[in-house]
Amino acid sequence: MLTEKLIADVVGAALREDAPNGDVTSLHLIPASARATAVLAAREPGVFSGSAVFIAAFKLTESSVLVEMHIHDGEPFVAGQKLATITGPARAVLTAERIGLNFTQRMCGIATLTAQYVAEVQGTKANILDTRKTTPNLRAFERQAVLDGGGRNHRFSLSDMVMAKDNHLAVLTAGGKDLTTELRRVKSELPAGVKLEVEVDRIDQIAPVLAADVDIIMLDNFALEDLSKGVQQIAGRCIVEASGGVNLQTVGKIAKTGVDVISVGALTHSARALDLGLDITIEQP
Amino acid sequence: MLTEKLIADVVGAALREDAPNGDVTSLHLIPASARATAVLAAREPGVFSGSAVFIAAFKLTESSVLVEMHIHDGEPFVAGQKLATITGPARAVLTAERIGLNFTQRMCGIATLTAQYVAEVQGTKANILDTRKTTPNLRAFERQAVLDGGGRNHRFSLSDMVMAKDNHLAVLTAGGKDLTTELRRVKSELPAGVKLEVEVDRIDQIAPVLAADVDIIMLDNFALEDLSKGVQQIAGRCIVEASGGVNLQTVGKIAKTGVDVISVGALTHSARALDLGLDITIEQP
Amino acid sequence: MLTEKLIADVVGAALREDAPNGDVTSLHLIPASARATAVLAAREPGVFSGSAVFIAAFKLTESSVLVEMHIHDGEPFVAGQKLATITGPARAVLTAERIGLNFTQRMCGIATLTAQYVAEVQGTKANILDTRKTTPNLRAFERQAVLDGGGRNHRFSLSDMVMAKDNHLAVLTAGGKDLTTELRRVKSELPAGVKLEVEVDRIDQIAPVLAADVDIIMLDNFALEDLSKGVQQIAGRCIVEASGGVNLQTVGKIAKTGVDVISVGALTHSARALDLGLDITIEQP
Amino acid sequence: MLTEKLIADVVGAALREDAPNGDVTSLHLIPASARATAVLAAREPGVFSGSAVFIAAFKLTESSVLVEMHIHDGEPFVAGQKLATITGPARAVLTAERIGLNFTQRMCGIATLTAQYVAEVQGTKANILDTRKTTPNLRAFERQAVLDGGGRNHRFSLSDMVMAKDNHLAVLTAGGKDLTTELRRVKSELPAGVKLEVEVDRIDQIAPVLAADVDIIMLDNFALEDLSKGVQQIAGRCIVEASGGVNLQTVGKIAKTGVDVISVGALTHSARALDLGLDITIEQP
Amino acid sequence: MLTEKLIADVVGAALREDAPNGDVTSLHLIPASARATAVLAAREPGVFSGSAVFIAAFKLTESSVLVEMHIHDGEPFVAGQKLATITGPARAVLTAERIGLNFTQRMCGIATLTAQYVAEVQGTKANILDTRKTTPNLRAFERQAVLDGGGRNHRFSLSDMVMAKDNHLAVLTAGGKDLTTELRRVKSELPAGVKLEVEVDRIDQIAPVLAADVDIIMLDNFALEDLSKGVQQIAGRCIVEASGGVNLQTVGKIAKTGVDVISVGALTHSARALDLGLDITIEQP
Amino acid sequence: MLTEKLIADVVGAALREDAPNGDVTSLHLIPASARATAVLAAREPGVFSGSAVFIAAFKLTESSVLVEMHIHDGEPFVAGQKLATITGPARAVLTAERIGLNFTQRMCGIATLTAQYVAEVQGTKANILDTRKTTPNLRAFERQAVLDGGGRNHRFSLSDMVMAKDNHLAVLTAGGKDLTTELRRVKSELPAGVKLEVEVDRIDQIAPVLAADVDIIMLDNFALEDLSKGVQQIAGRCIVEASGGVNLQTVGKIAKTGVDVISVGALTHSARALDLGLDITIEQP
Repeated sequence: MLTEKLIADVVGAALREDAPNGDVTSLHLIPASARATAVLAAREPGVFSGSAVFIAAFKLTESSVLVEMHIHDGEPFVAGQKLATITGPARAVLTAERIGLNFTQRMCGIATLTAQYVAEVQGTKANILDTRKTTPNLRAFERQAVLDGGGRNHRFSLSDMVMAKDNHLAVLTAGGKDLTTELRRVKSELPAGVKLEVEVDRIDQIAPVLAADVDIIMLDNFALEDLSKGVQQIAGRCIVEASGGVNLQTVGKIAKTGVDVISVGALTHSARALDLGLDITIEQP
Repeated sequence: MLTEKLIADVVGAALREDAPNGDVTSLHLIPASARATAVLAAREPGVFSGSAVFIAAFKLTESSVLVEMHIHDGEPFVAGQKLATITGPARAVLTAERIGLNFTQRMCGIATLTAQYVAEVQGTKANILDTRKTTPNLRAFERQAVLDGGGRNHRFSLSDMVMAKDNHLAVLTAGGKDLTTELRRVKSELPAGVKLEVEVDRIDQIAPVLAADVDIIMLDNFALEDLSKGVQQIAGRCIVEASGGVNLQTVGKIAKTGVDVISVGALTHSARALDLGLDITIEQP
Repeated sequence: MLTEKLIADVVGAALREDAPNGDVTSLHLIPASARATAVLAAREPGVFSGSAVFIAAFKLTESSVLVEMHIHDGEPFVAGQKLATITGPARAVLTAERIGLNFTQRMCGIATLTAQYVAEVQGTKANILDTRKTTPNLRAFERQAVLDGGGRNHRFSLSDMVMAKDNHLAVLTAGGKDLTTELRRVKSELPAGVKLEVEVDRIDQIAPVLAADVDIIMLDNFALEDLSKGVQQIAGRCIVEASGGVNLQTVGKIAKTGVDVISVGALTHSARALDLGLDITIEQP
Repeated sequence: MLTEKLIADVVGAALREDAPNGDVTSLHLIPASARATAVLAAREPGVFSGSAVFIAAFKLTESSVLVEMHIHDGEPFVAGQKLATITGPARAVLTAERIGLNFTQRMCGIATLTAQYVAEVQGTKANILDTRKTTPNLRAFERQAVLDGGGRNHRFSLSDMVMAKDNHLAVLTAGGKDLTTELRRVKSELPAGVKLEVEVDRIDQIAPVLAADVDIIMLDNFALEDLSKGVQQIAGRCIVEASGGVNLQTVGKIAKTGVDVISVGALTHSARALDLGLDITIEQP
Repeated sequence: MLTEKLIADVVGAALREDAPNGDVTSLHLIPASARATAVLAAREPGVFSGSAVFIAAFKLTESSVLVEMHIHDGEPFVAGQKLATITGPARAVLTAERIGLNFTQRMCGIATLTAQYVAEVQGTKANILDTRKTTPNLRAFERQAVLDGGGRNHRFSLSDMVMAKDNHLAVLTAGGKDLTTELRRVKSELPAGVKLEVEVDRIDQIAPVLAADVDIIMLDNFALEDLSKGVQQIAGRCIVEASGGVNLQTVGKIAKTGVDVISVGALTHSARALDLGLDITIEQP
Repeated sequence: MLTEKLIADVVGAALREDAPNGDVTSLHLIPASARATAVLAAREPGVFSGSAVFIAAFKLTESSVLVEMHIHDGEPFVAGQKLATITGPARAVLTAERIGLNFTQRMCGIATLTAQYVAEVQGTKANILDTRKTTPNLRAFERQAVLDGGGRNHRFSLSDMVMAKDNHLAVLTAGGKDLTTELRRVKSELPAGVKLEVEVDRIDQIAPVLAADVDIIMLDNFALEDLSKGVQQIAGRCIVEASGGVNLQTVGKIAKTGVDVISVGALTHSARALDLGLDITIEQP
């Protein structure tokens, strides 16, 4: 969850990165008394995300700046649409402009891409999930954008949930140990709030994992027909996650196999910043 | 400059973001005594950047991990090339894997894209420059990647240099004030280490700006033939920067007009993360 | 998980709280060259916990101090047993003494109390779990002590897992909404890594909750015979947690009803600091 | 002193420890518009402490929450008494509940225990003092609770005051040096604001220490009659502190020997958290 | 630039340095309800600087304190002049007094000394500049005081501008390399916002440096007649800075040689704190 | 006390203030492989202070730099004396030079001035003490320099000791209350480690203060003969501090009146930075 404290910390740090000793241009060229009105406008269509972050960029620069949003997070917009109006001291508006845009363009880009994936799976029960392939130190922002685009979040971090992959399974069964037994032991030792997910690469791996009563099975890079077989075999006894080879062309077909969730690294990894701009008018006293 | 302190702070924060209370999977599935060998391999060609950051991801997780780089920053690599070998406690290697990749894929992506722009301007005197359109709180990392790709850095922040754009010029000349006089006044009031750059949108704006003896003139969104005229008019009396409408198709022609530097937002704004992977082998004692 | 970073941060803060401007007594009464040998001794029997924390208190005061542990975390000890030997500059040993003890006595107290609860449920399948009733900013330390005493951890924080209590259920079913339907909806909206636990106060609440396929049902303050009935009704379809009215007299009987886990606030809330002491010998050069 | 800054830092850290990424339960089960009224009620009698801390837990979660206290710090209360009323957004009230209670129960527990000790020494001139046996990083909170219970504070930290114990005295007199002379030398070298206290274990140690004109002499683990003798010998020439073997049974007799102050580790070390609860009512819009 | 954030951070840290656990004197001797009126008065003439910092010292101690300034930064004052009036809770006013004065006396001292240098160069085109010889961690405060005294700022830090001194030039020309060529190469590799200044010790060094088209040439420790020759030789092709041997006796003559800027370490290095005092009246309720 | 942690924090912050993004001059003009030898030399005589801080400036810039001190803190030196030798990577030595000097020149200046005061009182029992008139956030550094110059420290902060001045006394005796009684009450309420000092302006104020058994009486701005009378009246029953009008001309006479300690704001407030320099030789590989 994107808490107020986190927004203040991260946006504050970004503002200081961009103006550690103030904005020399505003300071020397714009009178302290000049005021600005700025309009955030969409240069292309998309889904909005990041209003709290956009507002914070201006408010943290100068608390007297007013930001009026004309759209809510999660709503679609068209090219040319006015998304927000900012009014306040011209120096502050000019100083905060780039950081406000840098965050919002990124978040809108992710929300827009997520919405495209979600549209492709409409009519199925599948949910679109993010991954840990996020920008360092911006994970909470990018996960919020995924939610705003209609997606759902996967685990937040390595501390939340166990995900056993091929390397882990190899270690677990070294020396001929029985996979089901070992997974059951692990499950009994985990903190009570921690789910156990296991990634399998082949259909024949499903049975022993399912027998261990795990919470989620991830079918990794399965062909479509194998996905269908996997879903049938698991038969609702745990959550089925599809992963690997997911793109806007394939996601609809994957969803139709009946999987519960589809995780898509591209949501955060490959989203393009959306083209938004600020039209600024300055009035001198 | 990407200092050791900054790398430690930012990579450390990213590691804590990804495992605030440790990696439950490694902790419960991998014995403390197991060791891993991992190879960083390129899945596509590119230019390398970020070795100090990649190393830090592992070292900050567990100082006994060894990372041997097989490539230097700034060197090109081919698909399939082995870029580094990591050896150490398996738990630590698995925990640090994703964060090491997240940073390095991003930096290699930027270096690779920069190198493509640089290749297009070869044979001209033009330098390729980055902009302030960087990922929040990762600017120093992304600027280093631009250097590794053969580019050069623009101003670091709003505190370093004055860049007067259309809004600023309108304020400066309000009430019929003379632009040259005003720019000269500003110049005399700036800290001695601060350069003065002015952005112009039309050829006829060049003369009064040039007369003020500014350090850099940016010709924004000029047609190619206007760029040439501008370069001739300025005639080496200050640095000429081209900006706007720059892409891999246009950059070569822009360079041939004789401008000194070309700033490209896309270097950091639109670079795609390069596809790198880690092949891990775990040995149990 | 109690990471090295967290230990360094919290123990470092505690050392600064106790000597923000150094230890005036050591500084003015003990020569810089004097050396000390100190033995950590048990004044009463217990289960050990906190060796990494104890070591850190001395090492962070002065890195040249050596601490040799004679016991591992999780092992029992008798009154009078020597648990560790510390050697190093006398000033540092004296300065760190109280903070080392404050942490270790607290952690051993929790481990020892946990071990008593665990002993009472031996022979049943029930696990003993901690709660969120921990000392502010010491939760990870106290959870580790519970593990060392043979217990298991519950959720780490409000961010990890949903626990729906009476207030939440009232909100969910306001206006006559169906509890099962509502819980199913919530479940489908949660991040994939987040478990759903529901607390019930009466037997008749179990059926609609169980029908929603939740991860854990907590039977709160149930009489022993109702616990047995609840376990039979749930019949392994989800984890059963008992809570409320748990003490060393009742816990064995509760375990015998067949519940999976028993959460005990007293483990961290009411554990008494164990009586440990440091016997110090100082040698002057 | 418990400053506002310290309360904000420590309570803020505790709230983040308990909900680093927000409270998933409130977020998914409670509408953002729902409001709550909560009453803090005593489940057993005691002395109140920690109102500023209790208020901060809610205010730092959400500044619009209102907390009205019905009791002042230092006042006694009976079982069932209403101590405070909280009104505000239901999500915030539920999120802050546990942390508010964790701090307040601990502080009330210490104030209540301190008041019991103070009651036992009524009619004598003795003051009850705390020690450095406090919870790591909560010392200022626990010292405030001692004040609220009618006690007085000892030194805050190792930086404030010299306390020379047996080990220090042994070092000081090594090689046959004269104790009085050495203590006088130490005294002349200390910062002017730093008091000198010396701990003695036997009556015959008093004379040479007293001759050095120290500020406080601690009579450690003295039998009652020896305490009386010590008090007579010192005869008001410095403060007399009793320590060791102090409990609710012995403290009154110790006070009657005429000592000035009695330090009691148990105030902070062994105080039980008082049983307080929050009765919450949620209204949906 | 002295940002609000920096003032809050640095003044806040100074307040905590001076009262880490509160002001025991105010707490024990002044009733919480007592109010104070204090007047900041000049005990000697000077130029004012630091009003935002002075205000912050009181506001950060207690936000209800009111500070009314009777003078603006940069204005001169006479001995005995009332500079500000402070009203608020007496405890807070007394606690903040020393820190408010420590900062303001220092800043006024620097502004006053700077104004003396500026007066000496009146009628010439020379600007008076500060250096990096500032108090650790107070550079932005001291630079602001230089501005308030009528001076101008040099580079903020080592990250802003290249300044090549004798050691650097020796390295650059090692092995007989050509200085002009090397300086041109360096210039082409610098970030676009970074100026290049070169320090020369003798007149004959000017020619090759000037040929490299650098931004600033510093004539270090030049005799007056050599300064004049240097200015003539450079003839406006770059900025000329004089440095070394500058004091209130010499600065006027140096300015008359026609140099553009004169850097003076003494502005921050040797400025004496100005004598200001606070006259406090306390009213009890 | 100047702890290692504090040195690392404050010197580290100063290094970042001076090179937030690295030293562009070293980076672009000095090869990474070049090595430097630098000698710290005295340009005037003095008393040394700050070796740990000087070393830290280089070590924190680059841990491989070696600093060999040729003098200990507290020792006198003559003009021209070599005080330390630094060897290491040339970039790091050049980057750290100014910060190393800024701290050391300041500390040596204070130690040297203190030593002059101490020399003036030789043969009397008086100690020279510092005050709270220190540079913001450098108090521990400046107090250490006072110790190195042979002085003694006063209270560290407002939290350590009560100092009741005229304003406080007026509040205490408002409504005709008896001063002695009120001071005794305050004394009984203070934490046991906190001393009580009272400042008096006239001889007749001494008696009621002395009767309250306070720890220190400060005779503020007393004429020499009144100081003598005060000392006689107090007759060793508490510490006598002289303050006000103290300079190198008067301090000897003040000491001869028999006061115990003399506090001198000028030690930290008016000490001039001592002239030290670094002679650097760079070798290229």
